Amino acid sequence: MAGNTFGNIFKLTTFGESHGDAIGGIIDGCPPGVTLDMDAIQYELNRRKPGQSAIVTQRKENDNVQFLSGIFEGKTTGTPIGFIVPNTNQKSDDYSHIKDVYRPSHADYTYDKKYGIRDYRGGGRSSARETISRVVGGAIAKQLMPDIKINAFVSSVGDIFIDKPYQALDFSLIESNDVRCPDLDTAKKMEDYIKQIKKEGDTVGGTITCVLQNVPVGLGEPVFDKLHAELGKAMLSINAVKGFEYGSGFCGAKMKGSEHNDLFNPDGTTKSNLSGGIQGGISNGMDIYFRVAFKPVATIMQKQISIDNMGNEVEMQGRGRHDPCVLPRAVPIVEAMAALVLIDKML
Amino acid sequence: MAGNTFGNIFKLTTFGESHGDAIGGIIDGCPPGVTLDMDAIQYELNRRKPGQSAIVTQRKENDNVQFLSGIFEGKTTGTPIGFIVPNTNQKSDDYSHIKDVYRPSHADYTYDKKYGIRDYRGGGRSSARETISRVVGGAIAKQLMPDIKINAFVSSVGDIFIDKPYQALDFSLIESNDVRCPDLDTAKKMEDYIKQIKKEGDTVGGTITCVLQNVPVGLGEPVFDKLHAELGKAMLSINAVKGFEYGSGFCGAKMKGSEHNDLFNPDGTTKSNLSGGIQGGISNGMDIYFRVAFKPVATIMQKQISIDNMGNEVEMQGRGRHDPCVLPRAVPIVEAMAALVLIDKML
Amino acid sequence: MAGNTFGNIFKLTTFGESHGDAIGGIIDGCPPGVTLDMDAIQYELNRRKPGQSAIVTQRKENDNVQFLSGIFEGKTTGTPIGFIVPNTNQKSDDYSHIKDVYRPSHADYTYDKKYGIRDYRGGGRSSARETISRVVGGAIAKQLMPDIKINAFVSSVGDIFIDKPYQALDFSLIESNDVRCPDLDTAKKMEDYIKQIKKEGDTVGGTITCVLQNVPVGLGEPVFDKLHAELGKAMLSINAVKGFEYGSGFCGAKMKGSEHNDLFNPDGTTKSNLSGGIQGGISNGMDIYFRVAFKPVATIMQKQISIDNMGNEVEMQGRGRHDPCVLPRAVPIVEAMAALVLIDKML
Amino acid sequence: MAGNTFGNIFKLTTFGESHGDAIGGIIDGCPPGVTLDMDAIQYELNRRKPGQSAIVTQRKENDNVQFLSGIFEGKTTGTPIGFIVPNTNQKSDDYSHIKDVYRPSHADYTYDKKYGIRDYRGGGRSSARETISRVVGGAIAKQLMPDIKINAFVSSVGDIFIDKPYQALDFSLIESNDVRCPDLDTAKKMEDYIKQIKKEGDTVGGTITCVLQNVPVGLGEPVFDKLHAELGKAMLSINAVKGFEYGSGFCGAKMKGSEHNDLFNPDGTTKSNLSGGIQGGISNGMDIYFRVAFKPVATIMQKQISIDNMGNEVEMQGRGRHDPCVLPRAVPIVEAMAALVLIDKML
Repeated sequence: MAGNTFGNIFKLTTFGESHGDAIGGIIDGCPPGVTLDMDAIQYELNRRKPGQSAIVTQRKENDNVQFLSGIFEGKTTGTPIGFIVPNTNQKSDDYSHIKDVYRPSHADYTYDKKYGIRDYRGGGRSSARETISRVVGGAIAKQLMPDIKINAFVSSVGDIFIDKPYQALDFSLIESNDVRCPDLDTAKKMEDYIKQIKKEGDTVGGTITCVLQNVPVGLGEPVFDKLHAELGKAMLSINAVKGFEYGSGFCGAKMKGSEHNDLFNPDGTTKSNLSGGIQGGISNGMDIYFRVAFKPVATIMQKQISIDNMGNEVEMQGRGRHDPCVLPRAVPIVEAMAALVLIDKML
Repeated sequence: MAGNTFGNIFKLTTFGESHGDAIGGIIDGCPPGVTLDMDAIQYELNRRKPGQSAIVTQRKENDNVQFLSGIFEGKTTGTPIGFIVPNTNQKSDDYSHIKDVYRPSHADYTYDKKYGIRDYRGGGRSSARETISRVVGGAIAKQLMPDIKINAFVSSVGDIFIDKPYQALDFSLIESNDVRCPDLDTAKKMEDYIKQIKKEGDTVGGTITCVLQNVPVGLGEPVFDKLHAELGKAMLSINAVKGFEYGSGFCGAKMKGSEHNDLFNPDGTTKSNLSGGIQGGISNGMDIYFRVAFKPVATIMQKQISIDNMGNEVEMQGRGRHDPCVLPRAVPIVEAMAALVLIDKML
Repeated sequence: MAGNTFGNIFKLTTFGESHGDAIGGIIDGCPPGVTLDMDAIQYELNRRKPGQSAIVTQRKENDNVQFLSGIFEGKTTGTPIGFIVPNTNQKSDDYSHIKDVYRPSHADYTYDKKYGIRDYRGGGRSSARETISRVVGGAIAKQLMPDIKINAFVSSVGDIFIDKPYQALDFSLIESNDVRCPDLDTAKKMEDYIKQIKKEGDTVGGTITCVLQNVPVGLGEPVFDKLHAELGKAMLSINAVKGFEYGSGFCGAKMKGSEHNDLFNPDGTTKSNLSGGIQGGISNGMDIYFRVAFKPVATIMQKQISIDNMGNEVEMQGRGRHDPCVLPRAVPIVEAMAALVLIDKML
Repeated sequence: MAGNTFGNIFKLTTFGESHGDAIGGIIDGCPPGVTLDMDAIQYELNRRKPGQSAIVTQRKENDNVQFLSGIFEGKTTGTPIGFIVPNTNQKSDDYSHIKDVYRPSHADYTYDKKYGIRDYRGGGRSSARETISRVVGGAIAKQLMPDIKINAFVSSVGDIFIDKPYQALDFSLIESNDVRCPDLDTAKKMEDYIKQIKKEGDTVGGTITCVLQNVPVGLGEPVFDKLHAELGKAMLSINAVKGFEYGSGFCGAKMKGSEHNDLFNPDGTTKSNLSGGIQGGISNGMDIYFRVAFKPVATIMQKQISIDNMGNEVEMQGRGRHDPCVLPRAVPIVEAMAALVLIDKML
């Protein structure tokens, strides 16, 4: 149950550490005969890659994906798609100082206790670099469902948030700014705040909202594998995520039934959509929307007291190249995971 | 991928509809040689059963579990444990008026669209009566991990919430009141509010907080099957749940890294626990705590306009015996699902 | 990985011991809207049940199946189908003499070593009574694929075998005799031989041949889950099975490529069918045929020296009601498992 | 259910086509802290590789494995092990003549019908080159179970077979000859026969016997996942396999119970071992032995009439570099699959 596979029908299995030779994976279950748009896959990787703007980590990686199988003369063959993304800009020396140290709120301690061994270079497998493979898988999944629109965006950073329902936003503006926030005034505030936080050597959390549109009625299995339960697990599996809510979410818990019920139109659509597009675990054809909470990045450029693996106190300070706020780069990851959940139900 | 199985090692598969002959399930993977405390299992069922207090549905069911296999001379044998809980108090006539009607914010519409057929009696499989089997499975799981303490409680109903950290609460008071809220002043307010809501023919949502203590270090698989991702999926699979957060949750998304990081003590414990007992998807030995949001029950005793399966408008009003607030009865379900997640990692 | 579930899409999970209250199971993944022919299900159970003829065990069981869920107004609903078959004719006292004894070539020793506990009554879970649930699942699977013809028959008992290719047989004669052998002369010899063996207090093995006709092209996944690998596993999971071969089988291993290759007709069918209807793990539309070897029943009515769980030598002799030859009753089990393999690929 | 993953605990997922860039895979679930013997892994690959002797295909591949993750400073880390084996000696032009032709008894027809597309170069994914990844996985599995001895050998080629029980053989002689037959007289006859067959432009089948020694008592799950059912599926998943038997196998089907039962010694071992080391699906500590039937290679260097994908008759003749008999190279593959089955139960 080693947990490196996602999906049941369209199965993505991933491998790779932050400072190993390559990140990669295998997609098993991709339908045959699909002409893959390689540029679209690389585009998603570019949205995730480091060094893309002033407010993200400055590690320089091109993150070019190489496909090794499952594609013949440009088309998928129905056999497993193996792929790798070489790591080219590892600076493992940046990490020698933490070889025996457990960084606070990282996975260092738990990996060491669980496995008795730990690849300390850049967090090893616990690094968000692992999500490269998710983005590749999600980018292919998206191409298999061209009618479904998947749009994620940064809806809050620290205390700054978009004060509008998603329906009032123009998703085409998401990529217009470095934060990936479609509300441009808010985006500016977020960007300024992230820059300030970076100057402080600190980091900050936030939320991403994701909207899935044109999802057909009937996706999802009731009981244990409800569609929102699968989406929730997918999002909670992303590094740094602390919470997930869909539809009315935590606000819905304060409401009365008479306020919360979504009344039907004669065509089966609903007048309101506090259900968030899912009823009884099954999509009802309305927009599916959910919100994902990310904690602040644990690596800060300030002095912290920590311990080493002998229990000795150690003063440490982040080095290397880190994100002051992961939200902008997490947007394509949220979309990729949503795509992976949906494709598994669509096939 | 029909979604009626939970777990990989300790696997619970369930069956049964609200108004069928019986609810039941199979537990595959229970270790052999365990003397089961049958009273403890029935105790958990009693916490979940209808009719237990004035603030829950008055359907009368004893919910007595019968074990059909896997137990010999009082001990588990390592072979699958089959069990059934007969339905004895079905009043299917209560539902004949909704035979062709889609109740707002229920699963009627989505089931009908997905399956083309629907057992309309009491919601059929979409009824929370299905959770009986979860409680049986969870009660057995608890017995296999006697050292781990699992305590869930109602932390909010509508706008009423416990204004204290869980560390300030006495869990032994949870069962002292009908709401299952360990803060007695708050419990009283909640109870009064639920009674008032019931009088109005309305329903109300709320949140349940769950605390897992004495969990060993090292549970959970990193990447896709992070421990909190499994917990999140488990909770989101419970009827009416709209959100899940653990540790700092959505509040953590507003914080800075310098505030959020949990600094180590020399023994590997942490001074704070905003991580919520899980780092990198793996338990770190600190308390695991999380919060689950429940929407208000969809069935209200007020008139609503809905549609039938031909798209005709229909005026309807809830009949039968329903909960004004599911939270009190959901407490043992949350605990059961937490137990099922943990036992799968403990074995 | 407790091994009581079969299938990935149409999943059968079973429970039950020979002398427990009931045998049963859950089918998860049955499509909705299917009107089940209950008589056809019971017919298959009757083919498997004890006491049906002079050459099988005289245990008297009606083996009546009761469905508890997943069926509404005679039709499947797409939700899990729970079912039980009560055990009504247990004579557990027949087994008290072997409580601490390991019967030769039974599962007594291995269960005791694996689990540290053992339900000695009639072999407990290791009894072929467990196959009742398979027959229920298979009977439903058959109904979902009315075009596919599944015919198994006894092709050898001891040294007596049908000396004809299956194409020369009339499958409608299978049920015309107690042995379930469609070649009537051979059937008579087999029946006489089994009666003689029974008189000797001995048992005998044999083979069952199974032919699957009208199977569509394209079933099966290449690599690890080849169609014949799934069929082989399914057959080898039946009690007492020692071998499986399909198409040319072990004879094919003696042949040259120039003899063995199946040349094509212009329509894609093949002139010969040594491939056995499967090429590269995928069905090619030709008849699928395979042969399954059953060892003789281990319980004999002769004195044997064995040991108890302390390592003491014990003289023992079979009591109770046993089959001198399981082959006749195994025919519907082989068909059921074939049906379960196919339905999983057909859905 | 795309079928490219083997195992539940120690999971091997593979990718790669005969003439793609690389063959490879991911092992998920390998325990941490194991120092891998890379030479031992390469040794197994060398036993499988083409061009190793005069009686196998002359395709020249070094089949060097490169590990990309999951190993740090020579030790496994518990994270997934990604690996690739580049294809370096593809001569795809050898296959242009069969681009639209279905070769008899190959997977060309079924792949084309199933997927609607086919990588015709060397059989694409259906090529036994895929087994490279199995050998890598099996070689690692072997290292995790140093006490278990796994010995496979060629026991027959055409009509030539070893006329001795395996106990009379010296397994250390298996690698002493090109056939991998430990009985040297028989080996010589087999080798001569294969050379003659090759001269004829023909191919020939045979059987491999495999013996697993020092397997602990208690491996395997009863019911559907019996140990021999898992072994059977594993073997039947190897290219060209037509049959599997263990212990007494098909011979056992001719025997009486009084002949077939394995009587116990006081220590729980058995005087005979017709059970083949498995009772009730669970290992009993005795040697596990089984036999696997391979059909002759379908590609022959003789003219055959076949069809193209339009149904036109085509005269064709094998080109390229092919095995006259796959048995010698299949020995390490059988061992690898046995190792993969066992490690999944041992962990």
